[in-house]
Amino acid sequence: MPSTVKASGGDKYNNVTMSQNDRDDEIFTGESSSKVKLVTTNDQIRRLQTIIRDKNVSRSEFVFSADRLIRLVIEEGLNLLPFSEHIVTTPSGHEYDGIKFNKGNCGVSIIRSGEAMEQALRESCRSIRIGKILIQSDEETDKAKVYYAKLPKDISKRTVLLMYPILSSGNTVLKAIEVLREHGVIDEKIILLTLFVTPEGIDTLSSAHSKITVLSTEMNPVVPVHFGKKYFGTD
Amino acid sequence: MPSTVKASGGDKYNNVTMSQNDRDDEIFTGESSSKVKLVTTNDQIRRLQTIIRDKNVSRSEFVFSADRLIRLVIEEGLNLLPFSEHIVTTPSGHEYDGIKFNKGNCGVSIIRSGEAMEQALRESCRSIRIGKILIQSDEETDKAKVYYAKLPKDISKRTVLLMYPILSSGNTVLKAIEVLREHGVIDEKIILLTLFVTPEGIDTLSSAHSKITVLSTEMNPVVPVHFGKKYFGTD
Amino acid sequence: MPSTVKASGGDKYNNVTMSQNDRDDEIFTGESSSKVKLVTTNDQIRRLQTIIRDKNVSRSEFVFSADRLIRLVIEEGLNLLPFSEHIVTTPSGHEYDGIKFNKGNCGVSIIRSGEAMEQALRESCRSIRIGKILIQSDEETDKAKVYYAKLPKDISKRTVLLMYPILSSGNTVLKAIEVLREHGVIDEKIILLTLFVTPEGIDTLSSAHSKITVLSTEMNPVVPVHFGKKYFGTD
Amino acid sequence: MPSTVKASGGDKYNNVTMSQNDRDDEIFTGESSSKVKLVTTNDQIRRLQTIIRDKNVSRSEFVFSADRLIRLVIEEGLNLLPFSEHIVTTPSGHEYDGIKFNKGNCGVSIIRSGEAMEQALRESCRSIRIGKILIQSDEETDKAKVYYAKLPKDISKRTVLLMYPILSSGNTVLKAIEVLREHGVIDEKIILLTLFVTPEGIDTLSSAHSKITVLSTEMNPVVPVHFGKKYFGTD
Repeated sequence: MPSTVKASGGDKYNNVTMSQNDRDDEIFTGESSSKVKLVTTNDQIRRLQTIIRDKNVSRSEFVFSADRLIRLVIEEGLNLLPFSEHIVTTPSGHEYDGIKFNKGNCGVSIIRSGEAMEQALRESCRSIRIGKILIQSDEETDKAKVYYAKLPKDISKRTVLLMYPILSSGNTVLKAIEVLREHGVIDEKIILLTLFVTPEGIDTLSSAHSKITVLSTEMNPVVPVHFGKKYFGTD
Repeated sequence: MPSTVKASGGDKYNNVTMSQNDRDDEIFTGESSSKVKLVTTNDQIRRLQTIIRDKNVSRSEFVFSADRLIRLVIEEGLNLLPFSEHIVTTPSGHEYDGIKFNKGNCGVSIIRSGEAMEQALRESCRSIRIGKILIQSDEETDKAKVYYAKLPKDISKRTVLLMYPILSSGNTVLKAIEVLREHGVIDEKIILLTLFVTPEGIDTLSSAHSKITVLSTEMNPVVPVHFGKKYFGTD
Repeated sequence: MPSTVKASGGDKYNNVTMSQNDRDDEIFTGESSSKVKLVTTNDQIRRLQTIIRDKNVSRSEFVFSADRLIRLVIEEGLNLLPFSEHIVTTPSGHEYDGIKFNKGNCGVSIIRSGEAMEQALRESCRSIRIGKILIQSDEETDKAKVYYAKLPKDISKRTVLLMYPILSSGNTVLKAIEVLREHGVIDEKIILLTLFVTPEGIDTLSSAHSKITVLSTEMNPVVPVHFGKKYFGTD
Repeated sequence: MPSTVKASGGDKYNNVTMSQNDRDDEIFTGESSSKVKLVTTNDQIRRLQTIIRDKNVSRSEFVFSADRLIRLVIEEGLNLLPFSEHIVTTPSGHEYDGIKFNKGNCGVSIIRSGEAMEQALRESCRSIRIGKILIQSDEETDKAKVYYAKLPKDISKRTVLLMYPILSSGNTVLKAIEVLREHGVIDEKIILLTLFVTPEGIDTLSSAHSKITVLSTEMNPVVPVHFGKKYFGTD
C-alpha cells in the first residue's frame, strides 16, 4: 500500500522526523514506490522553516534563510550518493580508514524555483555538471508539458540530484522524471532534493510507480507554494 | 551611421578599450542606436578572457574564471545606475560629500547562459529582484520565440540589468528587448551586461533602432559561443 | 568521575556518534565537567574527515573540504543556541507553530586556526560580532600566555561560540576560557566549536572543572594537528 | 621630493584618481620612495566609500559594502602581479593572444583589520597561501612591536600582497615591511592593498625609504580609523 503516509510524529502538521543514519527506515518501503527521507529536524531547521513560512518576513531574510536550508538539504543529499572505502595516510604516518565518493553524479534543476538550489550544490561540489528542465502547463490542455531540457550528454550513467524546493501536486516532478527516463536514467538513480513535500505529492509519485528517493525537511499538507515568487522577487 | 563599429585599438582582435569614467565617449552615440561601453581592459581581465577562450582549460578553472569576470562586469554595470548626492557624517564628526544609488533596479537573465550571472548580481546587490526570459528558435520557422517570461510586476518603473554573457548574432537579445518593451520598459532604461560581443551583434541591435546600453569586456568577431555548455557542463 | 571518556562506538578510532537531537545524552554529564556533543556522523562527514586527514591531498581540496566540514559544525552549533516558540502566519493565512532564536550571541576565534571558521559563521549569521584571542607559549616559561584579545564590549551578556578546529592538549582552549571568564562570561554560556578532539584534551577541560559545551565531529587520540599550517599554506 | 603629495583632483577631500592602466603615472616616482596607485574612482566606488564613512550605517550594511570595496581592490591588486604572454587555442580552432600570470605570489594580512581582506583574496585566488603578522604598541615604550608572525616558508621568492585596509600613521605598515625584509622579501616585491590612505602615512613610508607599491581607493587626511572595530563588531 504505497500510497498511505504514516507520519511518525503527532503534532499539528504531522511532521515526520527520521534519523539521517537510519537508511532502512524510510516512510515507504514498497518495491513499487518512492522512498521518502526526511532530514533530521532540529531547532535550527525549524527556525529556518518558520522564516520561510512567515508571510511578513523581508525578501532579504527569506532568501538568506532559504539559502541556508537549501545548503543543509544539499549536504544531506550528497550523503546519499554511492561511496567506497578509502584508506589514507595521515601526516603523522597513521593509516586512517576513510571513505571516498564515487564519480558520476550530476544535478538537474527544474526551472525556475529549482534553480535557487544550484548555488548551494556548486558550493558543495565544485564544478558538478548541472542540467535544467522547464515544465509548464500547456495553455490548451492544462497538462504539464516540457518546454526546455538541457542535460549532460552521459546522464544515463550518472546519479541525478533533481532539485525542486516545493513538491506540491507532484505533477511537475513526475514530468521531470519522465524526461530523465527518456534520457536513460532509471528511477533508482534519481534523488529528489526538496525543502517541503505534501503527502498528496508523494501519493502522485507512488501512483505512477516512481521509485525515486525523495529527501525533504518537512512533510505537511500545507507548503509554501509562494517560494519561487518570493525568492526571485516577482511577487 | 550607427551601424559602423569603430575600434579604437589596432591589435589582432580589434579590442576596443575605453575609460570607465568617460561616460560621453561611447562607441555609438547616434540617437537611434545602442551605446556600447567596454570595461577598461587590464592584464587581469585579459588573463580571465584567455582562460575562458582556451579550449583546453578544465571546467573547474573555466567556471572560476568566468565567475570572476562576471563579477567585474556586474560591479561596472552597477556603476551605470542612476545616483544622487548624499552627505553623511563620519564617526569623527566630519561631513563627507558622498553619493547614494537610487532605488528601482532589477536584474533579468536570459535562460540559460544569462543565469550564470545571477549569483554575482546577488552578491553585489543583496536581495535584488531577478526576472527570467527563455528564448529559443521555433522548430518550424527558425525564428527567435519567447517560451517563458517571469518578471517583477512593476518592471516598467525599474532600470533593468539584462544579463547574457555572449552577444553573437544579437537575435536573442533583440527578442528579449521586445519582451521588456511589451512590459513597458523603455530602451533607455535597459543595460545589457555581457562578457563578449561581436560587431555583428551590435549591428543587429542598431539596425533595429535599439537604444539600450551595452557593457562588455571585449568586442571581437570571434566570441566563445560554447560558454553556456561549458559553464553548466552539458558539453 | 568526569574525566573518564566513554566512547559509544568500538571501531578502530573510538568514534563517538550521537544523535543531534538527543540533548540529554552527552558523554559527560557530571555537574563539574564539560559536555561533549558529537555531530551525527554520516558518510559525507566521514569523507570530509578523510580528506582532511590525508597527507597527500592538495591544499585546494583540503581548504574546500575543511570549509564544508566547518560549515556543518557551525550550523549544528547554532542549533545549540537558546530559542523561543514563535507563531507566524503563512501567506495562505494558516498559523504555523515555529520557533525563533534569542538575540545575544557572538563568535570568538582563537588565532590562527580558529579564524578559518569565521567565514562560515558569517555566512550563517549575517553580521554576527566576532572577537579574537591570540594565545602562544611564553618563550621562557613555556606556559600558554595571552598576547591579544579583542572582544565585544557586552560579551558577558552573550552566548559565546568559541572557534578552534583542533582540540589537542586542551591548554590553549583552557586559556581562552580563562580570558572569557575574566570578561564575565560563565562557562555555561560557552560553546566550543571544533572539528576534532582528543580524549586527552577533554580530560584537560574536565580537570580544570570547565563546564563549557564542546561540539565536534570526531573524538580520536590522533587529530590532524597540521590543520592551521595546511589551511593557510605556511607549511 | 618623494614626500610631497600631488592630488590631481581639486575637490574637498583631494581625491586622487588615476587610470588603472597607466602604470607609469604614479604619484611618487622617486627611486627611493613608495609608489601610490589609486583605483580608478567611479560612482559605485564613491558610494561604497560613503557607506563605510557614514557613522549611522548598520553593521550589516557596513560589512557588506566593505567586502565589496575590498573585492575591487583585490582584483585591481592582482592586476599588478607579473605576467607572461600566453597563446591559447579556442574551441573553434582560432589562436588567441592571451596572457597568464606567473606563479609565486602570496598574501600577508596584518591582524586584525587586514584579515577582513583575506576572504576576497581567497575568492579571487583559490588556495593562495596567506601569512599573518600581529603588530601592537609596546605597553612601555609605545613603539610598534611584532607579537606574532606566521609566513609561508619560501616567502623570499614570492610577490607579497600585504593587506591592511586603513593606512593612517603608517607605523604599523612600516613595521610589517621590516618583518618581511627580515624574511628576505625586497620592497619591490611588496604591494600594499588598502582602502584608504592618508598623505601622512605615505610620508612615513617615504621617509623610511620604503619602495613598496601602495594600491588604495582614496587618499585623504581623514580616514575611517574605526574600520576594524565596526567590521568585527567590537565597538
